[in-house]
Amino acid sequence: MSEQVKSFIANNLPVVDAHLIHAIDNQDIVETLKKSMIYSLEAGGKRVRPMLLLAVLEEFGTPLEKGLDVACALEYIHTYSLIHDDLPAMDNDDLRRGKPTNHVVFGEATAILAGDALLTEAFRLIAASSDYSAEQKVELLQLLAESAGALGMVGGQLMDMEAEGKRVELEHLQTIHANKTGALLRFSILAGALLANADQRELQALTRYAEALGVLFQIQDDILDVTADSDQLGKTAGKDEAANKSTYPSLLTLEGALKERTQYHEQAIGALQTIEKADGLLKSFADYITFREN
Amino acid sequence: MSEQVKSFIANNLPVVDAHLIHAIDNQDIVETLKKSMIYSLEAGGKRVRPMLLLAVLEEFGTPLEKGLDVACALEYIHTYSLIHDDLPAMDNDDLRRGKPTNHVVFGEATAILAGDALLTEAFRLIAASSDYSAEQKVELLQLLAESAGALGMVGGQLMDMEAEGKRVELEHLQTIHANKTGALLRFSILAGALLANADQRELQALTRYAEALGVLFQIQDDILDVTADSDQLGKTAGKDEAANKSTYPSLLTLEGALKERTQYHEQAIGALQTIEKADGLLKSFADYITFREN
Repeated sequence: MSEQVKSFIANNLPVVDAHLIHAIDNQDIVETLKKSMIYSLEAGGKRVRPMLLLAVLEEFGTPLEKGLDVACALEYIHTYSLIHDDLPAMDNDDLRRGKPTNHVVFGEATAILAGDALLTEAFRLIAASSDYSAEQKVELLQLLAESAGALGMVGGQLMDMEAEGKRVELEHLQTIHANKTGALLRFSILAGALLANADQRELQALTRYAEALGVLFQIQDDILDVTADSDQLGKTAGKDEAANKSTYPSLLTLEGALKERTQYHEQAIGALQTIEKADGLLKSFADYITFREN
Repeated sequence: MSEQVKSFIANNLPVVDAHLIHAIDNQDIVETLKKSMIYSLEAGGKRVRPMLLLAVLEEFGTPLEKGLDVACALEYIHTYSLIHDDLPAMDNDDLRRGKPTNHVVFGEATAILAGDALLTEAFRLIAASSDYSAEQKVELLQLLAESAGALGMVGGQLMDMEAEGKRVELEHLQTIHANKTGALLRFSILAGALLANADQRELQALTRYAEALGVLFQIQDDILDVTADSDQLGKTAGKDEAANKSTYPSLLTLEGALKERTQYHEQAIGALQTIEKADGLLKSFADYITFREN
């Protein structure tokens, strides 16, 4: 990780983490539900999506506080999706980031409700925010719902389930990822662009950047599953192969996946080069996502 | 049911039903997910919430089309809550309105995702609607999220789970219902008031009406569980007692519950009497909800 990304995260992650928890803790929510919501939020993680959103603001010289509510909404949605994904009926995972998953600690029923509550809270937080105009809120809420719902993340999760144990074509694999993980990553960049008042040309370039980033995120995930060990990953390595899952390495060989990674990395960097002000921090973020080791 | 309510429902239910399905079917959603979402929407039901919302518009002389998107959003949220409620980890119901529940037909994983997608779609539909100003959308979205989330319906579901098999005080029972079923019913009336440009005094009266209605809805549900048979209800009668659930009749006796029903009915009607234009159809709706037979 470059020094620039490292210090950006060091400066801003604690602010996001505090806001994430505070915005829930602050409310008069029934105890068990609140605990369950906060438990999964505190499980941490890299907060890639909030950091990307704030990085766009930073590059455009927009005060980062402006992005805080949307960044948290985004993380609520990411967190709810993990809680529901981990359920016995879905991926049946007992551990996430080294901690027992939500349903292991609170039971399945509470985990389902905590997920539902976090999803709903994401929309509430933006709608109730004092940092945006009504027009901005509507644009953000619509984009977030599109990215998170049947036409985005949830749709992608269903496609992913249906592809399980099957060998799928590369094109279909890309559609799955564009929805399952790409849509929310894309939102993080586009929400940043919206709040930073990016112009049409900048928005187009950032969209290209965001889409390449989404693919890079997945390729590197797939590569790490093959090349890293469980200690390094903080989760079980080799799971994709064990589950007979179609991945970039399984469809293209490891060498082919690395080549694909290079191409998308170039595409991400290339998109940024058309925006003068955005080829510092966002470039470093592309490097970080592409070459991260866990 | 009065002739007035009967003909209002006969005229407007088909319009809501068609819009509910069309707004989903219209989108390029992955096949299984779309089928699962539509399956539960088509399971029908009385569409009490959408009908109440439209009834407010009717009383205030606002064109009913104005309420269609919000009415559907409301029904999406109600439907998602039933799908998740029926899951094995929650109420474990195999039948709903005489049809196999969503997870019985599509599997648990798809049912969870269909619920998530419907919840998200509710917010998308309002945000993307061409029928409201940005300010109206924000107000509607915030109110809907508050009503549906941790401070409303989801919170109520958790309280209800925690009260299972325990004898709770009447006051606590009322808090549970005010959240679990009351919040969304309240939203249906308040959203109607908002779209009809009700003034402050009217809004207060409608809020009192809505809150009484929420209680009435639950009292009558509890009473029917004791007094009606399964055929009449279209679901298993006597379930509350079998589950040792605290209900109005179990806490107050049947006679006490009927008395309570009369009181809240008077409160609902009384609230309407302060609004000249709203004591026809809305009064009939209060009668219908109070004295319905299933």
